Amino acid sequence: MTAFDPTEHSHRRRNPLSGQWVLVSPHRAKRPWQGQQDKPETGENPRYDPTCYLCAGNKRVTGEQNPAYTGTFVFTNDFAALQQDAPAAPPAADPLFTTVDARGTSRVICFSPDHGRTLPELAPAQIVGVIDTWCEQTADLAQRYPWVQVFENKGTMMGCSNPHPHGQVWATSYVPNEPAAEDVQQRAYFAEHGRPLLMDIVERELAAQERIVVQTEHWLAVVPFWATWPFETLLLPRFPVSRLPELNAEQRADLALALKRLTSRYDNLFKCSFPYSMGWHGAPFDGSETTPWQLHAHFYPPLLRSASVRKFMVGFEMLAEAQRDLTPEQAAAQLRAVSDVHYREEQA
Amino acid sequence: MTAFDPTEHSHRRRNPLSGQWVLVSPHRAKRPWQGQQDKPETGENPRYDPTCYLCAGNKRVTGEQNPAYTGTFVFTNDFAALQQDAPAAPPAADPLFTTVDARGTSRVICFSPDHGRTLPELAPAQIVGVIDTWCEQTADLAQRYPWVQVFENKGTMMGCSNPHPHGQVWATSYVPNEPAAEDVQQRAYFAEHGRPLLMDIVERELAAQERIVVQTEHWLAVVPFWATWPFETLLLPRFPVSRLPELNAEQRADLALALKRLTSRYDNLFKCSFPYSMGWHGAPFDGSETTPWQLHAHFYPPLLRSASVRKFMVGFEMLAEAQRDLTPEQAAAQLRAVSDVHYREEQA
Ligand SMILES: O=P(O)(O)O[C@H]1O[C@H](CO)[C@@H](O)[C@H](O)[C@H]1O
Ligand SMILES: O=P(O)(O)O[C@H]1O[C@H](CO)[C@@H](O)[C@H](O)[C@H]1O
Repeated sequence: MTAFDPTEHSHRRRNPLSGQWVLVSPHRAKRPWQGQQDKPETGENPRYDPTCYLCAGNKRVTGEQNPAYTGTFVFTNDFAALQQDAPAAPPAADPLFTTVDARGTSRVICFSPDHGRTLPELAPAQIVGVIDTWCEQTADLAQRYPWVQVFENKGTMMGCSNPHPHGQVWATSYVPNEPAAEDVQQRAYFAEHGRPLLMDIVERELAAQERIVVQTEHWLAVVPFWATWPFETLLLPRFPVSRLPELNAEQRADLALALKRLTSRYDNLFKCSFPYSMGWHGAPFDGSETTPWQLHAHFYPPLLRSASVRKFMVGFEMLAEAQRDLTPEQAAAQLRAVSDVHYREEQA
Repeated sequence: MTAFDPTEHSHRRRNPLSGQWVLVSPHRAKRPWQGQQDKPETGENPRYDPTCYLCAGNKRVTGEQNPAYTGTFVFTNDFAALQQDAPAAPPAADPLFTTVDARGTSRVICFSPDHGRTLPELAPAQIVGVIDTWCEQTADLAQRYPWVQVFENKGTMMGCSNPHPHGQVWATSYVPNEPAAEDVQQRAYFAEHGRPLLMDIVERELAAQERIVVQTEHWLAVVPFWATWPFETLLLPRFPVSRLPELNAEQRADLALALKRLTSRYDNLFKCSFPYSMGWHGAPFDGSETTPWQLHAHFYPPLLRSASVRKFMVGFEMLAEAQRDLTPEQAAAQLRAVSDVHYREEQA
């Protein structure tokens, strides 16, 4: 009888943070790809674009003018998905057709005035500026909302409609699906083991080493054991902390380093501006106990084989279960095999 | 105070089938779109393509030759994501790193030898042939597997790697995430109300009318109240039935009609071959009680504004919660406003 080999045999892994499963089919990476090729993002953008509505001093769609900002620049999204003053939805008369209130706001965070430099190409001090803004925005919006979602959509493939490096922060009057699931799982784990789930993950990953992508004094980036996207990573603090604003100066400076190395490895993998959606999860601001929660960031990048061939999460994935074509350990090894210095900085 | 208007104000709706929520932001449809434009699929494909590995008589990647088939043609995927004989995974020593067995198989279903005709352009008798094949395949694989997932990825946008109209069937040695959630919800509803959840949905939708897209003698297609994709539909039988193979000849003939009308409306909406992932969910073959379950098909199409502008389920959606830019009622009205006769057949 053949012995089980995770790099050869289909198997399922459990995500203890979401409670969901993923199908791992590493043997499938061998199939030839004859489907869609996306346009690889290998070009360089100018440092300033007169037609960009995010560049300093330029006009936005609404006619408003951006200030001559020098660090980060935050403004309320001109077409926010959430309204601060949406009237209360009428109580549901039928349990099959339930509508509830959703209030909130949505802001855009320009990372720097530089139109052509994404996160890995910013100087560490500029990245600290981005981190400080994430923390300030979270603290500010948490005064009014139980959930503050900081995120970045990078690349046209990820629905980003403007190449000027920027992220977003959406605050909601409720805790959405994904963090609600993580809330349940982290509390259950804490109740059973008396330790935060993600602190135990950090300990195990440091011991195992095989899924580590970036390790700094205070931070750890791994391809999680249960990753669904090919090169998905989980960025974890190596110290107990439940929310972004609690990070001190040293932890922020070290996070800037970890982010720069992680996103440089991403760009180096296929020598392109690596698309992804990333975002932060921390304890909700709903008055509940925060100890079971560990702050963390998810990176969900779509590329699979090259700068132009992505993983499609479609039919089986949408209707049944996420499926991946290489093991998380193989993905981590590939990311470790490339430099953590960005290819453009190495050339310079 | 402004009264709540679902077409103007952000709100959340609950999906009783999955237990998840969706954020509805109809006011957001007004924003201009400056992001990625996909290549619209408006061209016609030849009836036969000598380089296609799915056309009758042609060679596949493996060197095998397809028969000169005239109806549907089924073969085992040359690069299946599931292996029938994957060895047992070792028992998990650590609850944070759980691996379990995943066995199964994956087959390709060519809908017809015609390379250039997708579902809406096939004759009703040919569509019945596809339905019969879905039913036969399900019955066959159910002898060995508790879950049989019939699905179709249509269009390059949905990761489809060959334009020859085809679907797939993947059987798994376990009930995957999505049907597992539907299983829980349908059983809980049945336990409380003594009726299948989706039979009650059919009744309510027939009474409300506003979300109906296609209605035949035995079938109903609606944009569900909780749809996440812009023009998502749920195709429901109007009679109790828990699994595909149970459908009788009359119900299958009428289903062919419903499918032809639904997919014609889709193509007519933006005058293109409307991309989607679709698939069937029915009671699992795991020995459990089947009465709470109603057979149904989900259609998940990505297009939002035109043949080239799609909805991106990215940052906020991946990290927090699905979000939509028009109400399900508005989507249903748009689909009802176009003909249910395919634009190419109308021209002919
Ligand atoms: O098997 P195909 O059609 O080549 O592959 C497509 O469908 C599969 C099932 O939904 C997905 O896992 C793949 O990512 C997608 O490209
Ligand atoms: O607000 P943006 O960046 O224009 O829009 C992008 O991100 C949003 C939040 O993830 C998504 O809802 C949109 O579909 C996507 O295109």
